[in-house]
Amino acid sequence: MKLVSFLHAGKAHYGVLKGQRVIDLSVRLGGLYPDIISFIAGNGQAVAESMIKESDGDFDYDGLHLLPVVPNPGKIFCAGLNYHDHVDEANRAIGNRKAPDRAMIFARWPESLTGHLRPIMRPKVSQMLDWEAEMLIVIGKPTGRYVPKDKTLDYIFGYSCMNEACLRDYQRHSSQINPGKNFEQTGAIGPWLVTADEIADPMNLNIEMRLNGQVMQKANTSQMIHSIQAIIEYITEWTTLQPGDIIASGTMGGVGFARTPPIFMKPGDIAEVEIEQIGILRNTIEDESTTLGPL
Amino acid sequence: MKLVSFLHAGKAHYGVLKGQRVIDLSVRLGGLYPDIISFIAGNGQAVAESMIKESDGDFDYDGLHLLPVVPNPGKIFCAGLNYHDHVDEANRAIGNRKAPDRAMIFARWPESLTGHLRPIMRPKVSQMLDWEAEMLIVIGKPTGRYVPKDKTLDYIFGYSCMNEACLRDYQRHSSQINPGKNFEQTGAIGPWLVTADEIADPMNLNIEMRLNGQVMQKANTSQMIHSIQAIIEYITEWTTLQPGDIIASGTMGGVGFARTPPIFMKPGDIAEVEIEQIGILRNTIEDESTTLGPL
Repeated sequence: MKLVSFLHAGKAHYGVLKGQRVIDLSVRLGGLYPDIISFIAGNGQAVAESMIKESDGDFDYDGLHLLPVVPNPGKIFCAGLNYHDHVDEANRAIGNRKAPDRAMIFARWPESLTGHLRPIMRPKVSQMLDWEAEMLIVIGKPTGRYVPKDKTLDYIFGYSCMNEACLRDYQRHSSQINPGKNFEQTGAIGPWLVTADEIADPMNLNIEMRLNGQVMQKANTSQMIHSIQAIIEYITEWTTLQPGDIIASGTMGGVGFARTPPIFMKPGDIAEVEIEQIGILRNTIEDESTTLGPL
Repeated sequence: MKLVSFLHAGKAHYGVLKGQRVIDLSVRLGGLYPDIISFIAGNGQAVAESMIKESDGDFDYDGLHLLPVVPNPGKIFCAGLNYHDHVDEANRAIGNRKAPDRAMIFARWPESLTGHLRPIMRPKVSQMLDWEAEMLIVIGKPTGRYVPKDKTLDYIFGYSCMNEACLRDYQRHSSQINPGKNFEQTGAIGPWLVTADEIADPMNLNIEMRLNGQVMQKANTSQMIHSIQAIIEYITEWTTLQPGDIIASGTMGGVGFARTPPIFMKPGDIAEVEIEQIGILRNTIEDESTTLGPL
């Protein structure tokens, strides 16, 4: 099934898709699962299935104010330099880059996220806004520590697309790239959260990024240097994953800063990330206003 | 005033110190401020002051199971390479280190924290457990974006000590140091949260780290490369800070890995971080058990 989070009367709701309609699960299951993380943790899919049978939906999907599929993840881990062609282009452009022996993990915080069809914000302090198409993983249950690689997929609730957009100058103010990766409303996630049962093999999906219709990145998730299984095994060597935690699995060659001349996203541009069996995430670029509004 | 978080009947409570006694604010103010973050956001100090006058306290401070002063911060930012003598020793030991032009910001997540008098856990996958004495800042109110440097102190609720302990090998698996900084129950925070009104000048405090009574680090917060004002100004260029968010302001020279020969913390060691006008944070080192328990 496909789950969405959306803003309704000023609050984050979550729901399930039935065709082009959305069934509001917050109003039906709010007592049991007050938010999408508790729905995920409680394995609410069976009851959601029964509601798909009974209801014709509450809203048209078109026109909803969509939020990141999980608006309030406890932790957001991002893998860097996880496709060889991206390592190579980064090394050509700025030098001193090689594939890491273990997954390179950097941080995002929820404030940096935005939803499908919402603007990606170009901040007033930088114009070096670049795209990064990535497959996103949402964790379904607490992992504990030291998950063996062959058990890692059991902990995945579902998948989505991410445009892990970032500001390249702020990413290089020091050796640690977190600042450039955490501008408000830059990391887009959507269009929905596809549950794991619908994805036969997450490590064999075509993924593509288009800017104003032109293909800028194209790969298959099988080309990852560190598989999502290896990433989860690695993370649980040092911490635990909880329901709703998010892992972005890294981007492939074709980003803007490594091109000659470099290309950056600008207001009015339309950025799309498409992953086979998941869907198409679409965002326009806007300049941030002085006072940022809600997601 | 001095605030603490502690575990009571399986739940996180918060309270205020009166001498060696703790007044449980969770039971008195829980309806208004269900957790310490809502107490901070709601500016609960005036009502807490009245309770200090009225009550003799509920618990002896000694014997409480203390939690990190804020057990569930939304965001934890840590500044790296923020004292020149630490930059120099790191450069001598591993090369290629220089003071960053803007604050180097890396991430911790709440699972990596622990409280005063709780064990710092050495994981089974690494023995390179090192200490890092730091002054910790807790944010009091939402900053919005682009806070001018001369207004930044207005957003600080209080201060604490941190032993920002880390695993040096995991810190160098890639260019991004976050994994080595996020082993469960390694980052100790305490002994309490001192409200900002009690600290005349946070940028002029002596800070010292002792391992088994021997002074290993000694500095004054005036020696920071990027002041806490500059760090808050920088962070709000890209995101917003919320009540309860935490900033660790970086460590000074004298860490273990840069010594000849290197020194690492081992089970039974006693690690202390003392900051003038704040207090002494004390932790013993333990090997983690296969199944990690609660904080």
